[in-house]
Amino acid sequence: MIARLGAGPEFDRIRAIAAALGDRAAGLGDDCALLDLGTETLAISSDISIEGTHFRQEWLSLEEIGWRAAAGALSDLAAVGAVPIGLLASLALPADSPSSTFVQLMDGVGRAVDAVGGKVLGGDLSRSPVLTLDITVIGRTASPIRRSGARPGDGLWVTGRLGGARAALLDLQSGRLPAEVSRVAFAHPTPRILAGQWLARHGARAMIDLSDGLAGDGHHLAAASGVALVIELERVPLGPGVEEAASAVAESAGVFAARGGEDYELLVALPGEFAAEQAGELNAATGIPLTRIGRVEAGEGVRLTLEGKPVQLRGFDHFA
Amino acid sequence: MIARLGAGPEFDRIRAIAAALGDRAAGLGDDCALLDLGTETLAISSDISIEGTHFRQEWLSLEEIGWRAAAGALSDLAAVGAVPIGLLASLALPADSPSSTFVQLMDGVGRAVDAVGGKVLGGDLSRSPVLTLDITVIGRTASPIRRSGARPGDGLWVTGRLGGARAALLDLQSGRLPAEVSRVAFAHPTPRILAGQWLARHGARAMIDLSDGLAGDGHHLAAASGVALVIELERVPLGPGVEEAASAVAESAGVFAARGGEDYELLVALPGEFAAEQAGELNAATGIPLTRIGRVEAGEGVRLTLEGKPVQLRGFDHFA
Repeated sequence: MIARLGAGPEFDRIRAIAAALGDRAAGLGDDCALLDLGTETLAISSDISIEGTHFRQEWLSLEEIGWRAAAGALSDLAAVGAVPIGLLASLALPADSPSSTFVQLMDGVGRAVDAVGGKVLGGDLSRSPVLTLDITVIGRTASPIRRSGARPGDGLWVTGRLGGARAALLDLQSGRLPAEVSRVAFAHPTPRILAGQWLARHGARAMIDLSDGLAGDGHHLAAASGVALVIELERVPLGPGVEEAASAVAESAGVFAARGGEDYELLVALPGEFAAEQAGELNAATGIPLTRIGRVEAGEGVRLTLEGKPVQLRGFDHFA
Repeated sequence: MIARLGAGPEFDRIRAIAAALGDRAAGLGDDCALLDLGTETLAISSDISIEGTHFRQEWLSLEEIGWRAAAGALSDLAAVGAVPIGLLASLALPADSPSSTFVQLMDGVGRAVDAVGGKVLGGDLSRSPVLTLDITVIGRTASPIRRSGARPGDGLWVTGRLGGARAALLDLQSGRLPAEVSRVAFAHPTPRILAGQWLARHGARAMIDLSDGLAGDGHHLAAASGVALVIELERVPLGPGVEEAASAVAESAGVFAARGGEDYELLVALPGEFAAEQAGELNAATGIPLTRIGRVEAGEGVRLTLEGKPVQLRGFDHFA
């Protein structure tokens, strides 16, 4: 059984694999694999980062490459509301890489998992012509939040502020030095572990972390839940420097932020009665804002509007 | 805390990483990460396979590449005596790879995990110029067998027969077609899951799976246990076709088999009183032979002898 996924060649491949595996697979297609151990559920997820595909060495320090790879994987634990136990890191580097390269990468991985209370539990080292990190995270939760629980009438909320990572990426791709605030969003994203647990305790019906942008990840949540998401882009909270970055490419700031991937914030469906005061409690407890950006309706797909007018956007796809 | 490892640049890197991580790491250096969940222990291990480093596409079908990657990872569960729950597979392929390439690789992965009663639980897909598979396996056990429990006076035993994978590899590297029996050993290794559980129930003190050869893996077990291993190479059980392959390169068959990696058999220390009749019970229950090849003594390292004379060998090292 595979959770329903949104459109795109990457997800067509996942569907083809799931169809071929048949009952040799179980529970594919959510943020984490969820293993029911009786008294609690174990959440496990793998996230692979590859030089040239996910990052360039000239943009980031080795410590930042390690942090980002681990933070991206840990973000999947946040999306199910799990408490991290730790991670395994598989690293593959060119044969002539000095020991210090491994140590610096793993220092970043270790900092990221330490920041959320987990440990480096193991891994594997090997040779590859391209720097490759595959991070497998393990967490535990009494009752995981899936992508599939959103219902018409729910409110749609997002943690933090969006677009900062994309602002830095556009600068880096153009050979410009990003503003420090954007660079931090890109190089040192913070997995929303505490916010994920808080939301799980406060009625979250469905969650997903934003790695491919609001449109793409929204589609997965909509498809898994069998609902439509309506998102008002003027409500999207903007990361620092995003207004300037958006105007530099002549995009509305809300559109710019919605297109951005790798912010690793959480998109969450909460019951309609969940109120702004409760969002304030999360902010007071963790320092993380929670902003209502839309609603769940009957139907399918993601409907984006800007000042009431429809907008078309696609999520990021590795094989598009 | 890191388990003591044998010598070599790959293990120097692991030691350097563990030293830098300090208490941000836990339990590195055994076959699996072991998470104590109270009533049982979860065993988790990652194993990365990369084109050009671990295999060549002209030697193996995509299904065989998938099987081998999964079997190598599942072998780590066998080495702690765990029951497999399933695995996560991270696959990275060139951007122009058709969907069928992913499906065939995952068919092999799925067959391997299905053969030992587990499921494909999740994973990740991405782009890389070199075909890369990272497999993370998860299993459960009431009492895991570690590398560190061997004591002087124990007997040293090995499951199955060794050298078959190396016989095939030497043929493939020389452009010859391997004998079918050797090819199967290389392309479709069987993780010794049932044997691992049987040995755990019958007094195993320490186990390791043979991925880098008897000398290299023996050193890890010796170092972790703080003992010396004495192995009589003429006792090493030989895979089919190994005598012919050894004589073709003018090596004694026992030396040839001991040098071979990727047989994925288990090296196990059992109490001195464990007898050949008990080994027969394992064989009757699972069809897998168990052969005594030496003993555990006070001291350190691995002492290999052939007809009473000392022999020097090294294990395989990705960074040597």
